[in-house]
Amino acid sequence: MAVVGVIGGGQLARMMIPAAVALGIELRVLAEAPDSSARLAATVVGDYRDTAAVLAFARGCDVITFDHEHVPQEVLRALLAAGVAVRPGPDALLYAQDKLAMRERLTELGVPQPDWARVDSAEQLALFLADHGGRAVVKTPRGGYDGKGVRVVDDAHAADDWLANGPVLVEELVHFERELAQLVARRPSGNAQLWPLVETVQRGGVCAEVIAPAPQLTDAVERAAAEIATTVAHGLGVTGVLAVELFESTDGRVLVNELAMRPHNSGHVTIDGSITSQFEQHLRAVLDWPLGDTSALAPWGVMINVFGSLPDPAIVAALGHQSSAKVHAYGKGPRAGRKAGHVTVIGDDLDDAAFRARAAASHFDAL
Amino acid sequence: MAVVGVIGGGQLARMMIPAAVALGIELRVLAEAPDSSARLAATVVGDYRDTAAVLAFARGCDVITFDHEHVPQEVLRALLAAGVAVRPGPDALLYAQDKLAMRERLTELGVPQPDWARVDSAEQLALFLADHGGRAVVKTPRGGYDGKGVRVVDDAHAADDWLANGPVLVEELVHFERELAQLVARRPSGNAQLWPLVETVQRGGVCAEVIAPAPQLTDAVERAAAEIATTVAHGLGVTGVLAVELFESTDGRVLVNELAMRPHNSGHVTIDGSITSQFEQHLRAVLDWPLGDTSALAPWGVMINVFGSLPDPAIVAALGHQSSAKVHAYGKGPRAGRKAGHVTVIGDDLDDAAFRARAAASHFDAL
Repeated sequence: MAVVGVIGGGQLARMMIPAAVALGIELRVLAEAPDSSARLAATVVGDYRDTAAVLAFARGCDVITFDHEHVPQEVLRALLAAGVAVRPGPDALLYAQDKLAMRERLTELGVPQPDWARVDSAEQLALFLADHGGRAVVKTPRGGYDGKGVRVVDDAHAADDWLANGPVLVEELVHFERELAQLVARRPSGNAQLWPLVETVQRGGVCAEVIAPAPQLTDAVERAAAEIATTVAHGLGVTGVLAVELFESTDGRVLVNELAMRPHNSGHVTIDGSITSQFEQHLRAVLDWPLGDTSALAPWGVMINVFGSLPDPAIVAALGHQSSAKVHAYGKGPRAGRKAGHVTVIGDDLDDAAFRARAAASHFDAL
Repeated sequence: MAVVGVIGGGQLARMMIPAAVALGIELRVLAEAPDSSARLAATVVGDYRDTAAVLAFARGCDVITFDHEHVPQEVLRALLAAGVAVRPGPDALLYAQDKLAMRERLTELGVPQPDWARVDSAEQLALFLADHGGRAVVKTPRGGYDGKGVRVVDDAHAADDWLANGPVLVEELVHFERELAQLVARRPSGNAQLWPLVETVQRGGVCAEVIAPAPQLTDAVERAAAEIATTVAHGLGVTGVLAVELFESTDGRVLVNELAMRPHNSGHVTIDGSITSQFEQHLRAVLDWPLGDTSALAPWGVMINVFGSLPDPAIVAALGHQSSAKVHAYGKGPRAGRKAGHVTVIGDDLDDAAFRARAAASHFDAL
């Protein structure tokens, strides 16, 4: 029986459990706390920054993979040195950990991106602003997610606090029609498999809703997204699931916004909407098993994130209101603004599926 | 967070895990052994015939349900006396435990069945044989499954060994076109929901294959099956999933063969083939939560049982051969003839889906 070790006990590790149960894979999770979202599969509670703890956890696992991208490079390299299969490996994961390294590498690969620069000072930021209409996006190279570590600035001194700690990434403020995400999975032996391109709707810098496939897609945009994701997956040597967050700009460009090297919020719709979910595919990919069919089970799928909490009475109300809604609760205690679950509806008609998904999700009051 | 306790750690309990994970339900399993199929959710290893052990297990559970029907009535009644919600309850479960009681009750309900009789002696069996062309089916009232405890006899003394221990059930040998199964789920508050009627193909008294929906179904047969299952579910007060195994006879009758009051092999196709799987529906039903949409995700689904074992190299070969096949391994050690997993393929064309399912399943050599 194959054994997959997952570092991190969040909802992504949790949602690997059903896929592991189906395929007879033993899933082991190194969780941060005893009450983690993936506690059912947690075999160790420990610190992912502690090399000895991670090495001990890895013993007996056929491969180590991740719920998040925060495991330090030195821990990852200690695993490799000990002969542990780490997927994605540290050389790939670096580009999901460090946005400056990612921009540099994607430039080398010729992948379309927003204009960007590494800036070390307010003077350099002033130059970039002057070249880009006086506004730009500044990002800390590391540690940002869900809108954190990101600022839209029009003042060269607006990132002084970050610059005190080192260089930052500055990017052109892209005028976009919408945001898209292209999910792909790649095995170590090289084979890669794409899911249909989706539209992601953000609110307050956080993904609120995903529509699969992205409506009114032109062939050119679809091809561009597929080519970008395939180039990035192979070019960075990604193994497992890669999510490429994209801008579709008002001037018709498709540009890389962010990368995630793990199952991703934009792919949750695949659980109920695809022959092979991103969680099953991730396990297959990191084990170097054959990848599954990523065809959709219905013409449309709509996924709505739920924040704060999913108390049982609200789940009951949602299920009672919409019998076709698939409710996913992450088993977390209530906390304002935190992703606590999601709702998916699939169907033949987009408006109808979106209506039903939103109606079900409306039973969960945002905390 | 709702807590469901499952008595028995077999594959049915195992396959409840993904549904529980999705809905944020805490699943607790009382398993027979530490290496049970449902070990991931096992909180206690103990004997389901031990009233004290079962009562201790039930503490803190919102409801107790089952992986199998073998829990003795006295244990079930002790749970009720202690104020535990038991679904299905002992009054209903009796009819899945005792085939004579089942035949008697279905006769009272006017449900179509094979001719049957309770026989206490070889003389009574001789009379039944004489009335039914010299051949009949004899069944032990309790303990039979997968063809065990069932004999086709043409000799009045062929059941003497069983008769030495008490009465047996004798049934008309039905000349059937095929076997069907009607799955239904019912909540304590009364609402019931049917899945599409399926055809089950048996080999050696064991289910080998399920085709959903049953091909070339007449409206009359479909209506008869739905009416029977609804009548039985309400008439016996079943809560949770009820599987009604049916004969479609050569003379056009639909007759009840067997009942199971739990998720059932004939419903495994719903995991990958329905909006709501039988495992999710069972959890929702026993919690008295609203039932889900049972619509099919594709026009056809074909499920093939795998016996013996599912070694990883065979899983890899099956997945590599058929990228749309959904392989389910039950995490059991190899044992000749034992159900070890199943494979499902859904699609628009029955022949194609059946071909792909059988091709994938062919990688698992029957032990």
